[in-house]
Parts: sequence; structure tokens; C-alpha cells
Amino acid sequence: MTIKVIGFARSTNTLRVISCLNELGIPYQLEPPADFAAIKKDDYLAKKHPFGKIPVLYDGDYKISESRAICRYLVSKYQGKYNNTILIPHDVHEAGLVDQFIFYESFYYEPVVAKIIIHEIVLKTPESEIAKRALKDLDKVLGVYDKLLEGKEYLNGEFSLADLFHYPCAHFIYSSHADLWDKRPNVKKWLNRLRNRDAWKASLEKKNKL
Amino acid sequence: MTIKVIGFARSTNTLRVISCLNELGIPYQLEPPADFAAIKKDDYLAKKHPFGKIPVLYDGDYKISESRAICRYLVSKYQGKYNNTILIPHDVHEAGLVDQFIFYESFYYEPVVAKIIIHEIVLKTPESEIAKRALKDLDKVLGVYDKLLEGKEYLNGEFSLADLFHYPCAHFIYSSHADLWDKRPNVKKWLNRLRNRDAWKASLEKKNKL
Repeated sequence: MTIKVIGFARSTNTLRVISCLNELGIPYQLEPPADFAAIKKDDYLAKKHPFGKIPVLYDGDYKISESRAICRYLVSKYQGKYNNTILIPHDVHEAGLVDQFIFYESFYYEPVVAKIIIHEIVLKTPESEIAKRALKDLDKVLGVYDKLLEGKEYLNGEFSLADLFHYPCAHFIYSSHADLWDKRPNVKKWLNRLRNRDAWKASLEKKNKL
Repeated sequence: MTIKVIGFARSTNTLRVISCLNELGIPYQLEPPADFAAIKKDDYLAKKHPFGKIPVLYDGDYKISESRAICRYLVSKYQGKYNNTILIPHDVHEAGLVDQFIFYESFYYEPVVAKIIIHEIVLKTPESEIAKRALKDLDKVLGVYDKLLEGKEYLNGEFSLADLFHYPCAHFIYSSHADLWDKRPNVKKWLNRLRNRDAWKASLEKKNKL
């Protein structure tokens, strides 16, 4: 069964899935759409993603979209098949907390970082009120994360899918706002652990090749 | 083991969890915080939810937050224990698609409906640009849902956690914007199925008693 990812390796959402595939040691092929305009066209909306988003994953004839849902699917089906990496623990209580941290990422962290990426990198309007406000919000959010990470290497103790979900976004703005992360000792150490994982480095190589 | 929900029965996020508990037939107690200000205080942030949100669920000494993570936990631990209702199918491919629809709800549906609730009901500024724009966005989103629901009773065919997640928000604005839902035949039938479920009616009784 060939796994095919429709997406761009420079997209945070696609990198989330690539990083998960690499962590689990799953072979895959990346197939980028023609361009960003292509994912808003009728054909893509009808066949790939009804809201015009990437990534979409094909596992043989099975199709699934939304990076976080894709990663959960990959864990459910393939965790333990290619290597011993555990991204969602088998214990129901531990798995519940990984989910909790996944929704912290989805609702309190990613929307803020995404605003900074859009305004600073995509629209090139770093001086906009939205960008400035988002930086202040990120400062507060990382303050909360520093407490969450107190005495722990990762959000749920052991590395998990929740940690993996946080890094692709951070990668794009870390170098321009290193102080925000580095002034908090627990966040700084956590981020360094994430960026130094082999699976992430491999994901980045894919991004830089394209 | 007593299940305790910290939350307000008039909150969409708390209703999401109550509705899930009722669907699975799990006994629980609701313990509302003193008021909305209480969930932003240091003690609540330190002990309950670091971002100052409801609901939080206690299952004995085990604590978990974020309505969607809580519901997934309840399904993983209790589905099939009290009744035969299936909210997440056992098949890995079907479960993956339920997750996909959960993230459609989280990213494309709920943020739009939440804006309408906040501006029309909480802030009482239905004429604001944000409220008007959100109504237009909801119109588009429901157009996509009408296609998704073509030939199906529920998003993934059978009723699932993904459908359940959509209703609590809709409940608060349906009566004032019935045309948006009802002009689309598949969405209209879907919504009626959801609002007529016994578990939802029981959740609503809880809300109306308080």
C-alpha cells in the first residue's frame, strides 16, 4: 500500500504530517499540487478537500484530510509497525492527556503563531496591529507553556504527538523571535529537544530540497 | 469512580461533554464554578485549566480538560460499558474519518458559529461587522456541509462524535437564523436528527434547570 501526501513541504500543516511519517518510519511519497491557487479550484474541492486545504493523505484508496486527523490515523494504524516510537501511549489516561495537549495546540498556540507567520512572512506586514498583538499573545501563551513544562522533558512527560504538533509552526518564526522562547528555560529546552529530533531534521531536508 | 464535570450547562463547550456523557449513558455530576470570573483566577489556572477555560472533567483523581479531548477520553474508556451507542467506530479507517470531521468542526465550523454567538448573544452587537461577516462565512460553510451530507444521514454515514460536536453551538443561534440551515435540505435534515436525539434533549433539560 503506497502512502501519498498531497501537500507542500513548506507548509506547516504538511510538515506536521511529514514529521509524523518520519517519526513512525513510514515510507511515503509527497505530491505537491501545481500551486496554492490549485487547491481552491472546483476539482480539488470536489475530490480532495471540501474547504480547499492541504495536506490530504491517500493510503491506497483510502483518503483522509486535516493534518491532525491524518497523524492520529497514522498512529492508530502504523505505530509499532516500522519502529518502536510511541506517539500516542496505549494507556487510556495517558492518551487522553496527549489529546488534551493536542487541543491546547489547536486552540491556544497554533492560531497565534499562524497569525505571526501570515503577517510577517506571507503578507510581509510585520508592523500591522494584528502581527504585534499576536506577538504579545504568543508571549503569554509561552508563559503558560513554561509552567506546563516544569519538571518535564515533554508536555506529557514522554515525547508524544502533542509535542510533534507544536514544532512545524515554531520553526518558521523561531529565528526572528528567539527571545520569546529562549527567555523561558523550560520552553527553550523543550524547543531544542523538538528541533533536534532526527525525524524533524529529515522533514526539513524534504522542505529545503523543494 | 465518580465523574465530575466542572463547567456551566449554558456553555457550548460544557454541553458538548454533557451530551457525550448522556449518549454513552455515563452517570456524572456537574459542578459549576462560582461565576465566569472565577475561571480566570490564579487558583483555577493553577489547579484546573492553565488557559482559564471550561469544562474540566475529573474521573476519580484523573483530570482532563478541553471538551473534545474529554469526549474522546470518555469514548476510549467507557464506550460500550453502559449502553451500545458507538461514537467512534472500532475500524481504524472509519475512526480516522470521524477525526477528520472533528477537525472540520474545530477549524471551519465552530470558530464561525462562536463569533456569531459572542456578538449576537454575549456582547449584544448583532450589527457589528464581525457578526455580519461571520453570518456570511457560516452561509458558505453550511453550503459545504450540504454537499458533505449528500446521500448520508450523518457526516460519516452513521452517527458519531463528529456530529455530536456540531450541535451545541448550533442550538444557540438556530432559532434566529433558521433560514441558513433550513434552505439546505441535507443540512436541515441532519440538524433535525441531532436536535431530536434523546441524549441532547436530556442535556438541554440540565441547561434549562440551572
